[in-house]
Amino acid sequence: MRENVKVAIWGFGAMGSGMARMLLNKKGVDIVGVCDRHELRVGKSMYDVLGVERGNRPEVIIKADIDEVLTEKCCDVCLCATDSFTKNAFPRLKHVLEKKINVISTAEEMAYPQAQNPELAAELDRIAKENGVTILGTGINPGLMMDLLVVCLTGCMIDVEHIEAKRVNSLSPFGPAVMVEQGVGVTVEEFEKGVKDGTIAGHVGFAESVRMIADAIGWKVEKFEQQMKPIVTNVDRKSPYGFAKAGNVAGVNMTGQGWVDGEVKIDMIHPQQIEPEMEGTETGDYITIKGTPAIHMANKPEVEGGLGTIAMCVNMIPHVINAKPGLKTMIDLPVPRAIMGDMRDFIEE
Amino acid sequence: MRENVKVAIWGFGAMGSGMARMLLNKKGVDIVGVCDRHELRVGKSMYDVLGVERGNRPEVIIKADIDEVLTEKCCDVCLCATDSFTKNAFPRLKHVLEKKINVISTAEEMAYPQAQNPELAAELDRIAKENGVTILGTGINPGLMMDLLVVCLTGCMIDVEHIEAKRVNSLSPFGPAVMVEQGVGVTVEEFEKGVKDGTIAGHVGFAESVRMIADAIGWKVEKFEQQMKPIVTNVDRKSPYGFAKAGNVAGVNMTGQGWVDGEVKIDMIHPQQIEPEMEGTETGDYITIKGTPAIHMANKPEVEGGLGTIAMCVNMIPHVINAKPGLKTMIDLPVPRAIMGDMRDFIEE
Repeated sequence: MRENVKVAIWGFGAMGSGMARMLLNKKGVDIVGVCDRHELRVGKSMYDVLGVERGNRPEVIIKADIDEVLTEKCCDVCLCATDSFTKNAFPRLKHVLEKKINVISTAEEMAYPQAQNPELAAELDRIAKENGVTILGTGINPGLMMDLLVVCLTGCMIDVEHIEAKRVNSLSPFGPAVMVEQGVGVTVEEFEKGVKDGTIAGHVGFAESVRMIADAIGWKVEKFEQQMKPIVTNVDRKSPYGFAKAGNVAGVNMTGQGWVDGEVKIDMIHPQQIEPEMEGTETGDYITIKGTPAIHMANKPEVEGGLGTIAMCVNMIPHVINAKPGLKTMIDLPVPRAIMGDMRDFIEE
Repeated sequence: MRENVKVAIWGFGAMGSGMARMLLNKKGVDIVGVCDRHELRVGKSMYDVLGVERGNRPEVIIKADIDEVLTEKCCDVCLCATDSFTKNAFPRLKHVLEKKINVISTAEEMAYPQAQNPELAAELDRIAKENGVTILGTGINPGLMMDLLVVCLTGCMIDVEHIEAKRVNSLSPFGPAVMVEQGVGVTVEEFEKGVKDGTIAGHVGFAESVRMIADAIGWKVEKFEQQMKPIVTNVDRKSPYGFAKAGNVAGVNMTGQGWVDGEVKIDMIHPQQIEPEMEGTETGDYITIKGTPAIHMANKPEVEGGLGTIAMCVNMIPHVINAKPGLKTMIDLPVPRAIMGDMRDFIEE
């Protein structure tokens, strides 16, 4: 049998450290290096940072310099959990690919970089092929709930007329950074200002999800639009890291539309807020597809974003190792799946 | 641009003729031949049998002899809608593969022939590779709702503890053959007799779905069991092709279990009956997965079996043409998707 799958992790925040924790519970895979710049983590043992017993596993010291972590072909795949935007992630992704190491990126825009950065996407494809490795962006959304799962369900349809993907989720499990990015607790005025100056990001990924769906089923997107509105709470809402006073903002309602043949054929609806149940909002993932036969799917409550993204990235490791070199997206690879056995059994010879 | 995708159809019952109808509404694809033995169809124009205007398309006369339909490489793919069981389908599938033509089979057992016919599966794989073509079995179930969709949803899970796939569907849209196979209208005694002598087949595919799921996520199935019970109606139920008097059988309740590590980890539940709503049964597809995070998916009403199978088979044509030679299953190929554009755009160069 082949030796254990070797994984490096770049970025050891909530996502990176969560992937490490998941990987330590899987068989046939080793974490061989971690890169992170945070002063509280640099120089420390990955096991101490995670609060996990090292046992007889080799020590992994977190390094600030990626070149102290990665040498050419030192591992099978590097999980890059450093960015949301393709443009920011690009130099890092290129750096890893040039070490002839496969890449899985959590950057939302990397789920379908063809949508907003076609030149960078082409460049990543070229670099990956030149180095004989594969690069994939994935996560729970974009990556599964509002795009790949939609595509999969159209597979049993003779004809598709209109697609609505709706994800109603709670921001309560998330930390302080997400509270700021989503405008939790600010006044409506501050929210509008934050949207304008870009400090309130809202959900990143609609452009990518819409193009992934459209390209998969053969629709041409003529126009894409999105809107970001404050969810104003009528009651005081409190989560571990967020607080929104009645009259202030509890989260963001994102909506987006993909136009095909002169009409909106793809609708994306994604309200995210802390403590949604306090005002009777039922969380869940919903996919409604008009056509023959129609689809009315609901998954309640929603798949939690953090856990879902961690799992998607780790579970795609074998598919990325097995894939032909180049830039891949979720619609190019076999369906994602949990890895319950030895990870080596998932690798093709 | 390449020339139109060329498709032949073997078996022109409800499934084969439904696929033809669907294909005639798609761009970039032609039906080049149809084989069927039914005396009402042999020698007739496919267009007349379908009741569809031929327009300026070339005539397609239905032939009883497959060798009058298929010559070596005469088309890209042959849709085989002739059988439910791998053993019965095998000689036909072999015949097509040896003409160097890709195959998509509706045979339920062919969705994962490794489960019950590993030798025939290996043989089909060998023949397909020798002839440089691909063979796939698919459909709505097995093929999507109780297996591939389950696998896809585990993709966002860190850990999977137990899987339940439940499909509650109506047999009302189906014709007289299905009424007989599922025991609609018979007495409970006749039902028990029919199960014993094999005239009442129930659902074919649990063994395949269970193995597909288990193999995909890395579980080893130690034992598989299934049960077939009559659904006795308390009221008279009437569908276009079926009638069950109160006290008689309105359909079949199939249950199946996959044992992993000494316990049932996969539960399949599939009650099929005419007019389920007459006794308050809500039809739908349900997937419940215990683990982290948990999944509680419902699609209500269920995807209609006939339409779903027709769509799955047609929609997988490009994936089968693009695949490497050999026997493939749904977990080997990219996710299924509707074909809304020109089918040629889905074919890789």
